[in-house]
Amino acid sequence: MSRGKIILGLCGWLLACFAAAAMGGLFMPGEWYASLQKPAWNPPGWIFGPVWTALYTMMAVAAWLVWRQGGWKKQRRPLLVFLTQLALNALWTPLFFGLHWPGLAFAEILLLWLAIAATIAAFRPVSRPAMLLLVPYLAWVSFAAVLNFTLWRLNP
Amino acid sequence: MSRGKIILGLCGWLLACFAAAAMGGLFMPGEWYASLQKPAWNPPGWIFGPVWTALYTMMAVAAWLVWRQGGWKKQRRPLLVFLTQLALNALWTPLFFGLHWPGLAFAEILLLWLAIAATIAAFRPVSRPAMLLLVPYLAWVSFAAVLNFTLWRLNP
Repeated sequence: MSRGKIILGLCGWLLACFAAAAMGGLFMPGEWYASLQKPAWNPPGWIFGPVWTALYTMMAVAAWLVWRQGGWKKQRRPLLVFLTQLALNALWTPLFFGLHWPGLAFAEILLLWLAIAATIAAFRPVSRPAMLLLVPYLAWVSFAAVLNFTLWRLNP
Repeated sequence: MSRGKIILGLCGWLLACFAAAAMGGLFMPGEWYASLQKPAWNPPGWIFGPVWTALYTMMAVAAWLVWRQGGWKKQRRPLLVFLTQLALNALWTPLFFGLHWPGLAFAEILLLWLAIAATIAAFRPVSRPAMLLLVPYLAWVSFAAVLNFTLWRLNP
C-alpha cells in the first residue's frame, strides 16, 4: 500500500469511530439522567468525554493496524467483527439516553462486551498491538456495564 | 516483554501524554481569550477538546509502539526526542493562556513543530505505524501555529 493510502486509511477509521461517537453527542444526558438515583462511585460527568475520545481513538488505530495487513481483501473477517462491535457501541446511547430504557441498554451492553471480546480474539493473530489497544476499551465497557446495571436496579 | 508489562507500558504512555494534556486544563481560555479579535476561520471552541484528546491518544500509542521494540534500552534516543516534543507541547498552553503572550507562544510553537518533525524522523526506522500516527498531530500543530500567528498579529 502507498503511504498516502495508509494515511487516508487512518483518517477513514478515525471518521468511522467518531461517527459512532457522534451518537453520544445526539443523545446527551439531560434532565432524566440528572434525576436518576446514582451509586456513590458514579464517576463525575466530565470524565466520560475524554475517556471515550481516547477509547474511540485507540479503537480506530487498532482497526487501522489490522487493515494495513492486506486491506479489506485479506482482513475482511476481523474488520467485520470490529464493525459489528462499533455498531453495537453506537446503539447503546440511543437505548439508554434516547429511549430512557436502562434494562434494554444493559442487555445490549452485554452483547457489546461479547462483540469486543470477539474483536480482540479476531485481531490477535493479525496484530498484537491492535489487540492490546482494545484491552482498555473492554475494561471500560465492563465498568460501564456494571454502572448500567446499577442504575437500572436503583431506578425501577 | 511480557503481555502484562506491555499493557502497563500503554497505560504509562497514555498517562504521560495526558499529564501534558492536563496543562490545557490548568490554563483554560477565559475572558482574555474571549476578548481577542479572531479570524473568521477560527474553529468553534468545542472542537479543541475532542481533537486534542484524539491527538494525545495517537501520540501515546505511537510512543508505545516504539517503546515495544526493545524498551528504553534500545529506543532511548527516539523516546527522548518524543519526550522533548511532549514537554514543548505542555509548555505552549501556559505561555499562551497563562501569560497571555501570543508572540512568545508563537516562537515556542515553531520549536514544537520542529520537535514533532524530528520525532517523526526518529520513529520512522523503528515503526512505520508509529510515524504515521504523528502525521495528523503535525498537521494540526501547523494549523495551530497559523492560528497562533494570526491571533498575535490581530491583537497587537
